[in-house]
Amino acid sequence: MTPDPLRLAINQMTTERWTLTEAIEGYARRGVHGIGVWRPKLEECGIAVAARVLRACDMTVTALYRGGMFTTIDRLDFRAALSDSRRAVDEAHAIDAECLVLVAGGLPKGTKDLRGARATVRDAIAELLPYARQANVPLAIEPTHPLLAAERGCVNTLAQAIDLCDQLGEGLGLAVDVHNTWWDPDLEAGIARAGEARLLAFAISDWLVPTRDPLADRGMMGDGVIDIPKIRGWMEATGWCGFCEVAVFSAGNWRKRDPGEVVEVCRERFRTVV
Amino acid sequence: MTPDPLRLAINQMTTERWTLTEAIEGYARRGVHGIGVWRPKLEECGIAVAARVLRACDMTVTALYRGGMFTTIDRLDFRAALSDSRRAVDEAHAIDAECLVLVAGGLPKGTKDLRGARATVRDAIAELLPYARQANVPLAIEPTHPLLAAERGCVNTLAQAIDLCDQLGEGLGLAVDVHNTWWDPDLEAGIARAGEARLLAFAISDWLVPTRDPLADRGMMGDGVIDIPKIRGWMEATGWCGFCEVAVFSAGNWRKRDPGEVVEVCRERFRTVV
Repeated sequence: MTPDPLRLAINQMTTERWTLTEAIEGYARRGVHGIGVWRPKLEECGIAVAARVLRACDMTVTALYRGGMFTTIDRLDFRAALSDSRRAVDEAHAIDAECLVLVAGGLPKGTKDLRGARATVRDAIAELLPYARQANVPLAIEPTHPLLAAERGCVNTLAQAIDLCDQLGEGLGLAVDVHNTWWDPDLEAGIARAGEARLLAFAISDWLVPTRDPLADRGMMGDGVIDIPKIRGWMEATGWCGFCEVAVFSAGNWRKRDPGEVVEVCRERFRTVV
Repeated sequence: MTPDPLRLAINQMTTERWTLTEAIEGYARRGVHGIGVWRPKLEECGIAVAARVLRACDMTVTALYRGGMFTTIDRLDFRAALSDSRRAVDEAHAIDAECLVLVAGGLPKGTKDLRGARATVRDAIAELLPYARQANVPLAIEPTHPLLAAERGCVNTLAQAIDLCDQLGEGLGLAVDVHNTWWDPDLEAGIARAGEARLLAFAISDWLVPTRDPLADRGMMGDGVIDIPKIRGWMEATGWCGFCEVAVFSAGNWRKRDPGEVVEVCRERFRTVV
């Protein structure tokens, strides 16, 4: 069944040429009422202005991107990453984001200790979590594609992320991005195990064949091989009925187009292939 | 502890410029007595000649590459893939290979049914297995990096491959390639669960940062981020003590060098970083 058009959200990096206020107004004008906000764009705009325009446009912030990148070899850098994530929690609170997405961070430069990096991530989230709970900002761990395990995110499966949730408790959940997770043989099981309360964000795009760079070579829904309706169905089987946030990071294609046209394509594809 | 130099093998695509007989003789001359053989190279050489030179050089064929690529949309193509894999079994038998490596195949062109593709792979292996048992050729399923799930291999974790072994029984095992599997949070557990008898092949190389193409941008051991001694240790903890086969597929670098020099580098790195 076609999803309710009111559940369409767009990650603003899909329309990177727009400022934050341009994106909020540009989405709202075209009937889109959810936005994934990027912190550099938010900083550029200013929190007070952003909050006002969001309210004026009746726009839900489906997620703030991002905190995390905890894996460093340096104790000082670790504290800095934690401080930065605390600021991200404050910002998420200020714009009433449904969650703050955490990208774990990869292998510290010059090291090979993947297990150690994963333990660092656990420790960092444990330390951040009380602060996020006080601010009433849910933290959403985003499993990252294994291709990016070294550079960007050493949490690579839903199972890993849910294990962290189980260990660390309330206030923590998942950001499920189909582009990162579609290949996972345990994706359906992971979604079911996470359960509705921990499914904090759902990002959609498509996997192009071939894909040379999961970070910046994403396809628009329908242009690749991901069975998005099936995965959405697995999400909904848990009771989840949140926003589907289009996250098409495409340096070579979509980012070059007119953002208003891109929003129209998102709307069209949302109706037809999501 | 440094592995016994006699356990060093080299996948011949690491020294692609050499013919099969050149590779066998070139390895043996430098004290390497295991080789991973590629079928197109074997065909070019002829089985009788290959078998004779292998014997003369006291060379173990650690694996024959490859059978598989079972996932097609066409029933005729499926039968053709099976026939091809049966021929591969015959060839593996003829050169006394320790196993035949199976690469599953990705998503059939124009489809999105990953689960269906995985079921096809299971059915195909089930059909191939009796033939391989009769020839006394163990089949080694190679989990493929998730980046290549669509194009090349929809078996992407050790757990998936072991589940297939559990379902289909005797004569089936795993080819563990560190480049495909190093990111897997369940790698150690998977190796332990597989157990010595099902660990049929072990391929080493390194993961470069960044890696744009897992198929042709592999690093020499020591040049990347994989903790190879740790993974080898997990293998050995099961009782396994087979060949470590260097599989550095590097179109832009190692394949361009003098093959003899590449073998010397393999030997050196095997002593120092494996």
